[in-house]
Amino acid sequence: MEYKTIDDNEIHEECGVFGVFNVKNASELTYYALHAMQHRGQEGCGIVTTDGTRLYGHRGVGMVKEIFHEQELRYCKGDFAIGHVRYSTAGGSGPNNVQPFMFNHSTGDFGLCHNGNIVNSKQIREKLEMNGSIFQSTSDTEILAHLIKKDVTKSRIEAIKEALNTLKGGFAFIVITKDKLYAMRDKNGLRPLSIGKMQDGYVISSETCAFDVIGAEFIRDVEPGEIVTFTKDGMSSTFYAKDRVNNICAMEYIYFSRPDSDICGVNVHASRKEAGRVLAQEAPVDADIVLGVPDSSLSAAVGYAEESGIPYEMGLIKNKYMGRTFIEPSQELRDKGVRMKLSPVRSIVKGKRIILIDDSIVRGTTSKKIVKMLRDMGALEVHMRIASPPMISPCFYGVDTNTYEELISAYNDVEKVREIIGCDSLAFLSHEGLKKATGISDMCMACFTGHYPTELFDSIKDANKESKF
Amino acid sequence: MEYKTIDDNEIHEECGVFGVFNVKNASELTYYALHAMQHRGQEGCGIVTTDGTRLYGHRGVGMVKEIFHEQELRYCKGDFAIGHVRYSTAGGSGPNNVQPFMFNHSTGDFGLCHNGNIVNSKQIREKLEMNGSIFQSTSDTEILAHLIKKDVTKSRIEAIKEALNTLKGGFAFIVITKDKLYAMRDKNGLRPLSIGKMQDGYVISSETCAFDVIGAEFIRDVEPGEIVTFTKDGMSSTFYAKDRVNNICAMEYIYFSRPDSDICGVNVHASRKEAGRVLAQEAPVDADIVLGVPDSSLSAAVGYAEESGIPYEMGLIKNKYMGRTFIEPSQELRDKGVRMKLSPVRSIVKGKRIILIDDSIVRGTTSKKIVKMLRDMGALEVHMRIASPPMISPCFYGVDTNTYEELISAYNDVEKVREIIGCDSLAFLSHEGLKKATGISDMCMACFTGHYPTELFDSIKDANKESKF
Amino acid sequence: MEYKTIDDNEIHEECGVFGVFNVKNASELTYYALHAMQHRGQEGCGIVTTDGTRLYGHRGVGMVKEIFHEQELRYCKGDFAIGHVRYSTAGGSGPNNVQPFMFNHSTGDFGLCHNGNIVNSKQIREKLEMNGSIFQSTSDTEILAHLIKKDVTKSRIEAIKEALNTLKGGFAFIVITKDKLYAMRDKNGLRPLSIGKMQDGYVISSETCAFDVIGAEFIRDVEPGEIVTFTKDGMSSTFYAKDRVNNICAMEYIYFSRPDSDICGVNVHASRKEAGRVLAQEAPVDADIVLGVPDSSLSAAVGYAEESGIPYEMGLIKNKYMGRTFIEPSQELRDKGVRMKLSPVRSIVKGKRIILIDDSIVRGTTSKKIVKMLRDMGALEVHMRIASPPMISPCFYGVDTNTYEELISAYNDVEKVREIIGCDSLAFLSHEGLKKATGISDMCMACFTGHYPTELFDSIKDANKESKF
Amino acid sequence: MEYKTIDDNEIHEECGVFGVFNVKNASELTYYALHAMQHRGQEGCGIVTTDGTRLYGHRGVGMVKEIFHEQELRYCKGDFAIGHVRYSTAGGSGPNNVQPFMFNHSTGDFGLCHNGNIVNSKQIREKLEMNGSIFQSTSDTEILAHLIKKDVTKSRIEAIKEALNTLKGGFAFIVITKDKLYAMRDKNGLRPLSIGKMQDGYVISSETCAFDVIGAEFIRDVEPGEIVTFTKDGMSSTFYAKDRVNNICAMEYIYFSRPDSDICGVNVHASRKEAGRVLAQEAPVDADIVLGVPDSSLSAAVGYAEESGIPYEMGLIKNKYMGRTFIEPSQELRDKGVRMKLSPVRSIVKGKRIILIDDSIVRGTTSKKIVKMLRDMGALEVHMRIASPPMISPCFYGVDTNTYEELISAYNDVEKVREIIGCDSLAFLSHEGLKKATGISDMCMACFTGHYPTELFDSIKDANKESKF
Repeated sequence: MEYKTIDDNEIHEECGVFGVFNVKNASELTYYALHAMQHRGQEGCGIVTTDGTRLYGHRGVGMVKEIFHEQELRYCKGDFAIGHVRYSTAGGSGPNNVQPFMFNHSTGDFGLCHNGNIVNSKQIREKLEMNGSIFQSTSDTEILAHLIKKDVTKSRIEAIKEALNTLKGGFAFIVITKDKLYAMRDKNGLRPLSIGKMQDGYVISSETCAFDVIGAEFIRDVEPGEIVTFTKDGMSSTFYAKDRVNNICAMEYIYFSRPDSDICGVNVHASRKEAGRVLAQEAPVDADIVLGVPDSSLSAAVGYAEESGIPYEMGLIKNKYMGRTFIEPSQELRDKGVRMKLSPVRSIVKGKRIILIDDSIVRGTTSKKIVKMLRDMGALEVHMRIASPPMISPCFYGVDTNTYEELISAYNDVEKVREIIGCDSLAFLSHEGLKKATGISDMCMACFTGHYPTELFDSIKDANKESKF
Repeated sequence: MEYKTIDDNEIHEECGVFGVFNVKNASELTYYALHAMQHRGQEGCGIVTTDGTRLYGHRGVGMVKEIFHEQELRYCKGDFAIGHVRYSTAGGSGPNNVQPFMFNHSTGDFGLCHNGNIVNSKQIREKLEMNGSIFQSTSDTEILAHLIKKDVTKSRIEAIKEALNTLKGGFAFIVITKDKLYAMRDKNGLRPLSIGKMQDGYVISSETCAFDVIGAEFIRDVEPGEIVTFTKDGMSSTFYAKDRVNNICAMEYIYFSRPDSDICGVNVHASRKEAGRVLAQEAPVDADIVLGVPDSSLSAAVGYAEESGIPYEMGLIKNKYMGRTFIEPSQELRDKGVRMKLSPVRSIVKGKRIILIDDSIVRGTTSKKIVKMLRDMGALEVHMRIASPPMISPCFYGVDTNTYEELISAYNDVEKVREIIGCDSLAFLSHEGLKKATGISDMCMACFTGHYPTELFDSIKDANKESKF
Repeated sequence: MEYKTIDDNEIHEECGVFGVFNVKNASELTYYALHAMQHRGQEGCGIVTTDGTRLYGHRGVGMVKEIFHEQELRYCKGDFAIGHVRYSTAGGSGPNNVQPFMFNHSTGDFGLCHNGNIVNSKQIREKLEMNGSIFQSTSDTEILAHLIKKDVTKSRIEAIKEALNTLKGGFAFIVITKDKLYAMRDKNGLRPLSIGKMQDGYVISSETCAFDVIGAEFIRDVEPGEIVTFTKDGMSSTFYAKDRVNNICAMEYIYFSRPDSDICGVNVHASRKEAGRVLAQEAPVDADIVLGVPDSSLSAAVGYAEESGIPYEMGLIKNKYMGRTFIEPSQELRDKGVRMKLSPVRSIVKGKRIILIDDSIVRGTTSKKIVKMLRDMGALEVHMRIASPPMISPCFYGVDTNTYEELISAYNDVEKVREIIGCDSLAFLSHEGLKKATGISDMCMACFTGHYPTELFDSIKDANKESKF
Repeated sequence: MEYKTIDDNEIHEECGVFGVFNVKNASELTYYALHAMQHRGQEGCGIVTTDGTRLYGHRGVGMVKEIFHEQELRYCKGDFAIGHVRYSTAGGSGPNNVQPFMFNHSTGDFGLCHNGNIVNSKQIREKLEMNGSIFQSTSDTEILAHLIKKDVTKSRIEAIKEALNTLKGGFAFIVITKDKLYAMRDKNGLRPLSIGKMQDGYVISSETCAFDVIGAEFIRDVEPGEIVTFTKDGMSSTFYAKDRVNNICAMEYIYFSRPDSDICGVNVHASRKEAGRVLAQEAPVDADIVLGVPDSSLSAAVGYAEESGIPYEMGLIKNKYMGRTFIEPSQELRDKGVRMKLSPVRSIVKGKRIILIDDSIVRGTTSKKIVKMLRDMGALEVHMRIASPPMISPCFYGVDTNTYEELISAYNDVEKVREIIGCDSLAFLSHEGLKKATGISDMCMACFTGHYPTELFDSIKDANKESKF
């Protein structure tokens, strides 16, 4: 089974973070861990390490295996490291935004990386600039660095606490200095961050799949509003906020995370398979075969098949060898029927009534194409079943669905969506069904409900339109 | 679902071939088709085309997306093309062996590519050399070219027929000239070759998955011992041999082909899933979950789960972003538990009795590692079920298991293999079970039985030892 | 004739800058101009442009032709541009220091690049940090940006003036905003900066050779202490300092600049050839042939030969195709006599009394090697003649001879240097001879005299030792 | 001083060869030697070595430093090697023609490389094909392999002798087997080949500059019509032809070879400088400065300046950092005056009467451009002086001037050429002057005289037109 690539779907999260404290070959461990979280961001990546004397950093635009080679890993010396994989919507200005950032400062150099989104970044930034700060990127991450250094007289931990209290939104930060690591999570717990044990040291990761890959053992999650500090005296904890709740992002289960990760203690594959089962109970349909859209919907498809007793088949194949240098088919060839990302298997699809499981629908354009391909290949009926509720509101916490316009379900009811997509029937998982599948009742489900767990500041204005629902 | 990469397993086939006759953008179609058959060979690839005036060729050591860019595809002009992906055991001398080969000849230039293995190549080669031929590669393919050109007074089709009658073994050849394409298959039908229709022209492919990708429609297979000629007057057929039988290689179903291909009319995924079902009937065991070794064993695992009623889970994850430039973990890191190719999911595996489905066992080293990883992660029991019979004999028809030594089952009975691998129980699919799964009774199953459908000449001597069984 | 590469010698300057105001294809012009100044810095390069709406930037570690391709030039849109080539002593932390820097600021984004060295950077930096500034690079350039933005209430030109008055050292800066370009030079005129006319716009360059390459016409130099502003109303001038003198760096003539550049109105090749003539008058010697160390010493060698009447021959050849990917000979091969950078021509050298002209001696290690090579090839006598005076003091204005230790002439008199190098006789050009060759009497000759035209702050402490002379 | 690149001029030779016998690190030595001869061919290169057990080969399209890295050199094991750099007019079919070729043969594998051109290759090829040979390249080199192997009953040396007697034209071949090296030269001695000594072994090279680079010592040239064999018993010699003459190609002195090479015992730089002196005597003109077209004409320019007493200046600069990835200026930019390959120095050229020395004129297009550039930059007069006679006939021995049409002097007298080029006066070196410069009276000067030293077979027909002269 596989986790997803940048082209699978229409939504993307912005980043994964990783940290190593007191384990030899820290840069190499980070390399493998980032690689295991490559699905969280394929646009850029970086590593900053320290050997106690100085910081060493390397970052670049590209995948982990493209940016790091033996030379770069050797350069990044020491037993402490932080690393980052980045997804970005930006174009050519990308390189400036690739993390971790490094700052040279007479009170001690430090590095910083971050997953998530700050909703009041514009307000903070303007205020800092009026006081003489200048920014070299448009990244939220740089803001935290400026906040921490605004007043050099404060102790570092106090400066961090004050800085975090200024930030609103969903985030997970890791900070490295010459002798410490700090890991912190927003007070709503929107973005995940877990701690593992490895030999005499610790590792920190957006997803636990990275622990399995490097042989570390999961200990616990960083709590919402918590700052965990790693020093030569070990791990210690402090909280920067009082009102702390656990509103983990539901999309981590539905789409982002690797099936082998546990998010807030719940296995992602298991939650998806269960979502498929619940979906089969909520929206049964008579058909010949169950297909999943590879790769992220396969768990749900297996669950649906098991529950319904309708056989699960491999009727859609995803092309695995594509990559940066791959030549996309010309329009002329696409018109002829050349399909590269996904191709249906004629001998399986032909003459069949199909239940097609997908994890979510954003714009609906991919779904429309898949339904058409299946019909072109001779499918008699195509019944879409979506393993999550309709997305009706944009996300402001790190998922790149920023506007109502890009959400087909923000303007259309289910029947209208079905008509646009062109399938024979369409059903979504219910809100309750989603909670049941994960077993968690207080997830952030703002994209499905419109109820945001934080203030939104100006963000909502830029979301350009109000939903109809 | 995915097809396999070069690192999945311990066996490899040697190549895939593709041809286009009379379709515009022939080189581009070949590019996408070869890409869809990349799993059949990742060491090298090439394309030769013609625009009726001259031949254009490009080939290189690397994957399709690495060797071909827009420039190379533009250079390869015309509506006819042949293409090749190659797996090779050879080292640095590789480039000389990358196909298709092109030959400059005053009676007409031609190109040639080939899948399979000639068992009497050494004998033919020596004879040709004594008559003044010299060879620039060690490839069997070059032999056919020399045979065809040995006597320039013969008509081309007669020369080809005579040449093919000299060759013993398993093979599929495609030849391109400035105005014709020839597709041919050995008289035992050991290697697959299918014909599809696309607009006013034809396409030829080792696997039908390439047809689905480019939007072509399957017509029929090339028959054993048949030469199909494509000219401006269309497709015509002739046979070069009398004693023709259909001994398609069983490993095409078990391991080589993509799940979405139909080989000799049988869908590969369906045959694998059925093999899983039969295996569940033949070798049931009480356990908590069924896992498949990704990617080629997942179909069988789903079949086993469906038949047994034991849930199918994703407890082994294959790392998808690896590639040529990826840095392998050092021994030190591997000792620490860093695992890159396959990683078990601790939260799924821990405390479970596991049925582990794999498609085959060759050396047994990978199986041993997987069993150990699962136990390290807390599996209570590991029961291996193999969706094919024990491999007891080497293959001389294009699969790179050339010696008895590299086959664990050639020297050990099932119980001994179980002991080496370290699992709690082990069972293989029976010979009858395999036939039942594919519905084909006369496949070549020499690697499981030792009964070879052709003479073997000196090949068997090089297989270094006799089997115990 | 050629200009020099990074490996020619033992000294390096830190950068070249270029600007375009109001000429179409500004990024392309900058590309060719930077390429023409590649000898001034081969470690990194970058371009920032504007189309009046926003800034576009691209930069990277590598040569101009490696970092910029059509895609990057297309991305950098607009008719205004600044560009930079960088030489750096730093290792892996390089990328952060590659210029131009871009700053995102609510009062207007801007870009900045710089050639030279600020001697009080440490002092300024610490002061800025105490007030909340944080730095992402160790470059002096970032300091100017912080100084300019320290007080957002000031007009930009006032802010720049105040900032420049804070800086001590040798520098040439170019600043780009959405609608303006600013070009400025330190008040001692240590680093060169010239203005050219091209169609309706202007170009600015560290060296005039860039003007010849792009077809622009030289107008005048930026004056010491001058800020030239380019706006839609044309070019205007202001001065930020009162005590302005023209202390152009003598090494620009001796070593750094391309022979086809005019620095402060004096052609570099002409000054070198004249230096060779004066040297022949000052230090004649009876010999058979004159050789120059390629490439920067060839002009002087021709001058020496013309004046002395001793024939100029090509007895030392520089290997031109070397580059990043070139494999350096192993020690074993070097011991066997494999020479890659420079090789003597045996048939020219053998049995000859040689006058060897070099532009300067820094550490002396290269000179020693060349003398030995010539003797190994059969030279009877080797008389070194250096077309500049002995270097006895480090440079703090942008040349990377930072310590006394790396200057052989700081500790040794001429006879001792001759002994170390192993030549038969050695003579340097006199101070007066150098002035005569360039025709300029007030150049900065601090490296030859120890008389620095500015305060040195702490720099001199880091220069680790006092000279003996 | 520098040797030339592929873009310098309008004529090109086809290749350089190198061999190593019995010296450790043979592949590395060959790497450095080929690199030193990169000017003889930049399209492709390759190395074949042996460790006595088998042959190892690697070759590719590109420069030496691009095709070979440590990995490839390590792969090419052993103390014997041959290597090749190739210039080719062909397009995409290049890879098949890159040398050395390797042949697998039951009587012993061998490798082969070649510099020059066979004039009766078409005739031999057709004859071989009628007897069953097939060719994978269009290279003359493959022909020799087929000829040698035509009759496997002959001893190798006898087979080589017979093969060479069949070939007409100019050539230098090196053959490698598992225990021998053979070096051979055509009986007219048209192409150069020299032998050097290195430790206990030998090296063989098209140019002696490679010996200086690797520290080998020149012994003697291979004689016209000689086959030199290197075995464990040392070096031995035999001749395959009776009528042997030394007609070394005059263009080796004028244009092809590096100035530091000795061809047939005469130093190339010295011969060029002398040609410049003779030219100054034959065609004096009153002017202010002498300029040479870099790089190959600089020696002649220095000679002309010395003889005439007119100062030699650097008024034309060649851009050294260009390469494969360099973006050529668009027409729009070229119209604006952007010049990349050569740029004149305005401050030197302006207001001057110029003597411009070039080594030769082929089509005349480059000369025309240079004259125009100099006038655009303000030159008062431009007097061209060419350091070789007018080229009136094509070359069939390895220089790519294959037709009369591409030779401006084949159709136009000197005055007409002057008019086309647009200079104020034009003069060529006389035939006698050329002989005087090199001191060799029996060079092949066919391109200047039309008197070819061999039969021409059909070649002359393809040269498309007769000369007027």
